[in-house]
Amino acid sequence: MQTLHALFAAAKRAYDSGGTPHGPIGDTAAHAIELLAQRARSRGLAQCDGKAYSVFEASGRVSRPFLPSLYEPDPRVFQAEWRALVQAAQPKAKCYGLAAARSNRVLYTALTAFCVCYDLWKPGSRKTPGTFFEAVLGSILQPVLPGFRREGHVILPGQTENVSTDIVFHSPASAHGGLVIPAKITTRERVVQPFAHQRILDSIFGAGAFKSVLICVSEMQRDGDANANAICVPGTIRLFQMHLAAMSGIGYLDPPARYLAADVSSVIPVFTVGELLETRLPLIV
Amino acid sequence: MQTLHALFAAAKRAYDSGGTPHGPIGDTAAHAIELLAQRARSRGLAQCDGKAYSVFEASGRVSRPFLPSLYEPDPRVFQAEWRALVQAAQPKAKCYGLAAARSNRVLYTALTAFCVCYDLWKPGSRKTPGTFFEAVLGSILQPVLPGFRREGHVILPGQTENVSTDIVFHSPASAHGGLVIPAKITTRERVVQPFAHQRILDSIFGAGAFKSVLICVSEMQRDGDANANAICVPGTIRLFQMHLAAMSGIGYLDPPARYLAADVSSVIPVFTVGELLETRLPLIV
Repeated sequence: MQTLHALFAAAKRAYDSGGTPHGPIGDTAAHAIELLAQRARSRGLAQCDGKAYSVFEASGRVSRPFLPSLYEPDPRVFQAEWRALVQAAQPKAKCYGLAAARSNRVLYTALTAFCVCYDLWKPGSRKTPGTFFEAVLGSILQPVLPGFRREGHVILPGQTENVSTDIVFHSPASAHGGLVIPAKITTRERVVQPFAHQRILDSIFGAGAFKSVLICVSEMQRDGDANANAICVPGTIRLFQMHLAAMSGIGYLDPPARYLAADVSSVIPVFTVGELLETRLPLIV
Repeated sequence: MQTLHALFAAAKRAYDSGGTPHGPIGDTAAHAIELLAQRARSRGLAQCDGKAYSVFEASGRVSRPFLPSLYEPDPRVFQAEWRALVQAAQPKAKCYGLAAARSNRVLYTALTAFCVCYDLWKPGSRKTPGTFFEAVLGSILQPVLPGFRREGHVILPGQTENVSTDIVFHSPASAHGGLVIPAKITTRERVVQPFAHQRILDSIFGAGAFKSVLICVSEMQRDGDANANAICVPGTIRLFQMHLAAMSGIGYLDPPARYLAADVSSVIPVFTVGELLETRLPLIV
C-alpha cells in the first residue's frame, strides 16, 4: 500500500497543478491490479440486475462488490488498454476513437482496483478513492476539450461563495460557460447536489451557459456477506431533473438497470462513460 | 431511560395519528429534565459568540453543548411554563400571546433535556431527537394554524415521488398551498434540502403557493473536551436563498450570531422560534 499511495500521490500532484498525468495514473491503477492479484482473493457474491458481482477478500476484510466481467485482472493487458484509450483522443472531434465497451472496461478496472485496495488495506481513507476518480476523469476529458480551462469551482460574481464542482471545464468560447462534471463513485443521498448546483448556475449565468454531466462508477452496495443491491432513486432523479434543474446526463461505468428504464431515461439521458467519450460528448459541448 | 422512551413513544403515537399531545410532550420533557438533575452533572465547556456553553456528563459520556442561561433545570417550573405557552395560543391571530423569550426558554429546555438524555444514555438512537423535535413543533404550530391539515409530505401531481417535508400544514384556503416546516436540530451539510424542496414546490405549484420556514435548535457542536463551535455557512445560505429558492425564513431556538449579521439577515429573515410564534407567523401565512 505504501507504493500504491506514493504512485497515487505523484499522480494527484501532477493533476492538481493542471496536468493530465496519464502515465502516473496508469501506473497507479496497474499497481493496484497487481496488489490484488498477489494478495487478495476474489469470490462470487450475488447476482443483481442480471449481472454477477464478486468481492475481493484479504486481511479479514471484504471489499465493495464489483463486476468481474468488466474487470481486467492482468496489469499488462490493462496498461496496453489504458495506452490505447489515451492514444485514441480526437481533440478536434471532442471524442475518443475507441469502442465504448473498451473504454468502459479499462476505466472500470482502474477505479475498481484502486477503490478495492483502499477497502481492504486502508479503509479509513474514505476520500482518497473519490480524489482518484476525479483525477482519472479530468485527465481523460481534458485532451478532448481543447482550450477548455479545468478548475474545481465556478466563481460567482457578487457572491462570497463559489460553486464547488468536482471538475469544471470553462469554455474557451465564452467568459461564463462550460461543462461541469460532478464525479461521485456512488451518489447515495448526495444526488441533490449536482442538480442544485446546475440550478444556481442557470440562475446566475443563464440557462444552459454551464452544462452538467454527473459521472459515477455504479450504485452497487454490498448488503451483508452474500448480497448486493443497486441503491436507486428513480422518482427523485425524475423530480429533480424536471423541477430543480436539467442536467445534460448521467454517465456510469456500470449503469444500474433501473436508470436505463424508459421512465428515467426519457427524462434524463443515462449512458455509459464509454458512450460519453465515443459519441455523446460532442453533442453536449 | 425506559420511562423516558415510553413517555416519548406515547407522545409520538398521539402525534402521528394527527393529535397535538401537549400533555405527553410536557411530561416527556419534564422527565428528561428530572433524569438529568438526578443522574448527570453539568460543567462549563466554552464561550462561543459571547455565550457561555456547558455540557452534561454521565456514564463516562459527554453531551452536546447547551446554553445554561436558556435552560430551566426545575421540572415543575418547566411544566408551568409549558402550560403557559400552550394556553397562550391565539388561533384567530395565528400567534401566541407569550413573550418570545419565555417561549424560547421553554422550547429550548424541552429539546435540550431530551437530546442530552439520548446523548448520554442512548447515543445509538440517532433519529429519535429529530422525531421529538418534529412532534414538539407540529404540536405547537397546529393550534395557531386553525383549519390547516398537517402532514409529512406534499403529494406532487404527475410524479411518482412526493416531497418529504418534516412537517407541512396544508392551507384551508387553497387546494395546493401551505406552510412547509423542515425541522432540523442542526442543519450541517443538509441545508441544501429545504431550499431544493422549496424550488420544486415553486416549480410545480407556482412561486409562493407553499412557503418554507426552516426551524432549528442551534448550530453548536462540541469540539473536543473544552471547545464549542457554531458551524455556519453564511455564503451558502445567501447563495441558496438568492439562486436556488427563497424560503420565508429560518428560526432558531439559539440563533448563531453569524446568521444575525446583516449580510445574511438582509437576504433571508433569521429569527428566534419565540419571535416566529409571537409576531412573525401571521406575516407569513
